[in-house]
Amino acid sequence: MKKIPIILDGDPGHDDAVAWVLANALDCFEILAITTVAGNQTIEKTTLNALRICSLLKLNVPVAQGAHKPILSKPITAPNFHGVSGLDGVSLPDPSFGVESIGAVSLMLQKINESNDKVILIATGPLTNVAELLLVHPEVKEKILCISIMGGGINKGNWTPAAEFNILEDPEAAATVFHSGIDIQMCGLDVTEDALVYPKDIQRIANIDNDIARVVTKWLEFFIKYPLTLGYEGAPLHDPCAVLSIAYPEMFDMTKMNVDVELRGEFTRGCTVGKKIKNSQDSYNMTVVMGLDREKFIDVMINLLKSYNGKEGLTHE
Amino acid sequence: MKKIPIILDGDPGHDDAVAWVLANALDCFEILAITTVAGNQTIEKTTLNALRICSLLKLNVPVAQGAHKPILSKPITAPNFHGVSGLDGVSLPDPSFGVESIGAVSLMLQKINESNDKVILIATGPLTNVAELLLVHPEVKEKILCISIMGGGINKGNWTPAAEFNILEDPEAAATVFHSGIDIQMCGLDVTEDALVYPKDIQRIANIDNDIARVVTKWLEFFIKYPLTLGYEGAPLHDPCAVLSIAYPEMFDMTKMNVDVELRGEFTRGCTVGKKIKNSQDSYNMTVVMGLDREKFIDVMINLLKSYNGKEGLTHE
Amino acid sequence: MKKIPIILDGDPGHDDAVAWVLANALDCFEILAITTVAGNQTIEKTTLNALRICSLLKLNVPVAQGAHKPILSKPITAPNFHGVSGLDGVSLPDPSFGVESIGAVSLMLQKINESNDKVILIATGPLTNVAELLLVHPEVKEKILCISIMGGGINKGNWTPAAEFNILEDPEAAATVFHSGIDIQMCGLDVTEDALVYPKDIQRIANIDNDIARVVTKWLEFFIKYPLTLGYEGAPLHDPCAVLSIAYPEMFDMTKMNVDVELRGEFTRGCTVGKKIKNSQDSYNMTVVMGLDREKFIDVMINLLKSYNGKEGLTHE
Amino acid sequence: MKKIPIILDGDPGHDDAVAWVLANALDCFEILAITTVAGNQTIEKTTLNALRICSLLKLNVPVAQGAHKPILSKPITAPNFHGVSGLDGVSLPDPSFGVESIGAVSLMLQKINESNDKVILIATGPLTNVAELLLVHPEVKEKILCISIMGGGINKGNWTPAAEFNILEDPEAAATVFHSGIDIQMCGLDVTEDALVYPKDIQRIANIDNDIARVVTKWLEFFIKYPLTLGYEGAPLHDPCAVLSIAYPEMFDMTKMNVDVELRGEFTRGCTVGKKIKNSQDSYNMTVVMGLDREKFIDVMINLLKSYNGKEGLTHE
Repeated sequence: MKKIPIILDGDPGHDDAVAWVLANALDCFEILAITTVAGNQTIEKTTLNALRICSLLKLNVPVAQGAHKPILSKPITAPNFHGVSGLDGVSLPDPSFGVESIGAVSLMLQKINESNDKVILIATGPLTNVAELLLVHPEVKEKILCISIMGGGINKGNWTPAAEFNILEDPEAAATVFHSGIDIQMCGLDVTEDALVYPKDIQRIANIDNDIARVVTKWLEFFIKYPLTLGYEGAPLHDPCAVLSIAYPEMFDMTKMNVDVELRGEFTRGCTVGKKIKNSQDSYNMTVVMGLDREKFIDVMINLLKSYNGKEGLTHE
Repeated sequence: MKKIPIILDGDPGHDDAVAWVLANALDCFEILAITTVAGNQTIEKTTLNALRICSLLKLNVPVAQGAHKPILSKPITAPNFHGVSGLDGVSLPDPSFGVESIGAVSLMLQKINESNDKVILIATGPLTNVAELLLVHPEVKEKILCISIMGGGINKGNWTPAAEFNILEDPEAAATVFHSGIDIQMCGLDVTEDALVYPKDIQRIANIDNDIARVVTKWLEFFIKYPLTLGYEGAPLHDPCAVLSIAYPEMFDMTKMNVDVELRGEFTRGCTVGKKIKNSQDSYNMTVVMGLDREKFIDVMINLLKSYNGKEGLTHE
Repeated sequence: MKKIPIILDGDPGHDDAVAWVLANALDCFEILAITTVAGNQTIEKTTLNALRICSLLKLNVPVAQGAHKPILSKPITAPNFHGVSGLDGVSLPDPSFGVESIGAVSLMLQKINESNDKVILIATGPLTNVAELLLVHPEVKEKILCISIMGGGINKGNWTPAAEFNILEDPEAAATVFHSGIDIQMCGLDVTEDALVYPKDIQRIANIDNDIARVVTKWLEFFIKYPLTLGYEGAPLHDPCAVLSIAYPEMFDMTKMNVDVELRGEFTRGCTVGKKIKNSQDSYNMTVVMGLDREKFIDVMINLLKSYNGKEGLTHE
Repeated sequence: MKKIPIILDGDPGHDDAVAWVLANALDCFEILAITTVAGNQTIEKTTLNALRICSLLKLNVPVAQGAHKPILSKPITAPNFHGVSGLDGVSLPDPSFGVESIGAVSLMLQKINESNDKVILIATGPLTNVAELLLVHPEVKEKILCISIMGGGINKGNWTPAAEFNILEDPEAAATVFHSGIDIQMCGLDVTEDALVYPKDIQRIANIDNDIARVVTKWLEFFIKYPLTLGYEGAPLHDPCAVLSIAYPEMFDMTKMNVDVELRGEFTRGCTVGKKIKNSQDSYNMTVVMGLDREKFIDVMINLLKSYNGKEGLTHE
């Protein structure tokens, strides 16, 4: 089977980390590069986390550091959810390799240009890097198959009543990406708040006998704490949706929509406003993922984690 | 039983009309006045409709004409839903009496001042009149028990993806009312889009043997047409919710919230942004009605319509 | 000579006070009423000041209290310029009469309706009262000859870099008035910052031998202090421009313009944006006063103050 | 004398062209690169114009094409002022060389990195390229001595009443640059609308005996036409101010200010709002050029044009 080349851009973050663990386990994907962005934590912390995750996975791809701040907004971080390190819960060893000398935009540009096939960008943090790539090098658009993002929500917000964290962090970047003309697949809160991992699911993961599943267990045990205090029944696995909705679209409900980003509102900045225009199919700018089969989603995750059994230390470096 | 004095302010409109028919049938209410506002149709048309409704009901209360346009927005109307007259579907006789010489704000002021008890305002159109009353005569606030409105929606819009018609028509008025310090009860799309009257319900109404129910049947037969083309299973009886949620609160789900009106957004002007602040109960500015028991709602409506049997031509004037 | 009926609406304030002293001295005007608004100080203080000014002038007209806050903005006051009382500098006796039982909007409505001739409104504070009058009683527009305001500035701000105090205090009111269709004459900072009274001019006023001029001298001695610290050479007599540009138009440079009020900007809320559209004379909504002959302006003011000689205690009540 | 390395970024455009002719004649500058941006005309046209100008000047520096559109705004062009080609008035030969294979941001990055000395960016078009450079490669900031821009205006607009063309074209880019922490020198309409070249000045230029001055004469003869119809007495040489205010600061009046860019206003988007904060010198983000000695400015320009006498075809390539 021919693999789809992908680039993972994110701000790990526990759910970014799980998303990357799953992406690495999927045979359908070839990871070309990993790029980091400020979001859940500062760029220094998300980059260190990215290197540690790759080291854990023995994933031998270049990692480049991206934007340390949004295009225009003041940066916000999410220590309540992800701890001081951005990836609290387990102490990972120091990374076994370093960051690229070139930045995220340059690395994405290089990898897309080198690729024979069109590339999928999977962006699970604020869209700053992706927007800057498209602004400075618009010619790469024709080499991008689609951009799968975690962000937004059609009738939902989490950081404010009207806005989700990733979009609120850099609304101008989101608007740039949404209106770039590239196919976008958006996993927003409509689906990700239903992509819950329950305590019983974490128990199943804890029973998997490989080091990576053991780390994922620790991450999830940390990551579930704060949502439980907010009244959730589990931890919303936001970012894995952006990976699995590409690999297993049949598990998800999707609909075409036109989505705009509110940049100016007093109470609604960062709101992703979606509308279904009748009789004008062509003008949709996005596929919005609106729901999922949670049981299957968890089963797939567990199977992918099991696939690491016996793999460690073998293939990579 | 002591009756609660109420003032009905609206822009009839089929669902305003039904709301007023129900309010008039409720023994718990004493209607002090009816005031009109531009909205579903121009002020001339909504005022004429108000007079016709009162004539039909032989409802002997003063009717005053209110604002012909929103505070700052350009007026919009809703002929798709309500027809050219604003109340299409049946030809009502010319009204048997005329509009007051004083305007809506003056009439509301007078009636509130004359009332021994605190008054409930039931506002089922844009909030222009109510806002202007509160701006010019803020001293009446202490004579207002609460304001029950139809408008907005916490996670919903209808006229735009983010805004409901009544609020979008005059967002500045809504903001004025919402932050007036008066108790607000808001029936937005969260509840009103579930307050559906199905074709089978209209059939039940058609079987009621009095003239008023016969007119209501005609109204609903007209009013259901456009929603059915939009994919609704019935006609959303928005405005009756504002009446019945006061009279029968037990039929409705309600929650306290802080609700702001977005005045500035490019895509979200008129959005009613609600948040539940934990640990700070005092600061809620609103009771938001979030759901209802539709079957009971329809049964109540039908019983109230039946109560007109044998009443016509007797009590009023 | 037939007198023009005027209503004075303001937030005294030293320059409002001087404006009213001059208006009262002008034979061409008949003052129908005085109404107050929150602005330079709270509504209680500006109303008390209005009563004291009328008592000083033995001006026997009804005084009504108006809006205690802007339509939507949070109130601001200007104690730096006007002191704690809003009219510091001299201790005036308690007023000899009280405020009307009806509010500013009602008094304006009544006086306009009673007047045989069209009325000029001279508004030297935030435009809250005037906007509310036009919103609630739009039928009075045809009885209003023009509205002369002090506020705004085409290329200038004072309270922020882009906005003048009166407009910034209530931008929604200003937008309502500017787009009401009534002739507006706007004395903004373009002219009023050149309407300086220098220390030497105050000396001339100090030499006038009547009680009113003596009070005006005290007011100006207080009012000049803060501007001198800001680098002005004198005290800008903002509000008297709105009176004298009606009575002595030949002393002023005027131009037709279309002026909008910015309601939404992050840095520019309250900015009065003026444009001269070529080839479309009809659509101008305003006469903007852009300059004046300062020497003549001061001479006129001094002559009007001299006209109080021998008048005190004679004509009024 | 040690030369200051500069990079010229613009959207020629007649006044960009004149600015570059002058920059090339100044011994104090070493031009490292020229980059183009969409603005006065489309990116294809401004790039072709840039190549033609360099060919005319036998200026042997790399030319790279930049942004074809603003970061978020819809592009606007200015054919009224600059004609269909963006540089109408004289038919220049086809360029003698081509555009770089890398884009404007990459070329700026390379040249700044290669330079031993800090570089001055002289940006006479929309700030899209400069903003994108700073966003994607923030590490270059320490190699940039200052950014001299033509754009904005403290109390002025030209394309709208509140906004100047270059800033209005890409306000988000301007905000990015203004708040980058780099020293900015801004020549806005405050100075550039006084930097008029009169018909008599063009006559003096016409008398200079070299091919470049002859081309400049043709440009100015075209460029003066439209401003004369608008009531100007001459053609405002906006962009040359950004060059000459660096080379001859003594000819200009300058003041420190904090300047923000309005991104959200309904009537004021693109407005450059300047304030002088007293007692807080450190926080100024800009040197604003507020005036100039026009006679000296014209004399300097004429002398620089004369310096091309006998030079053509000699020094470059």
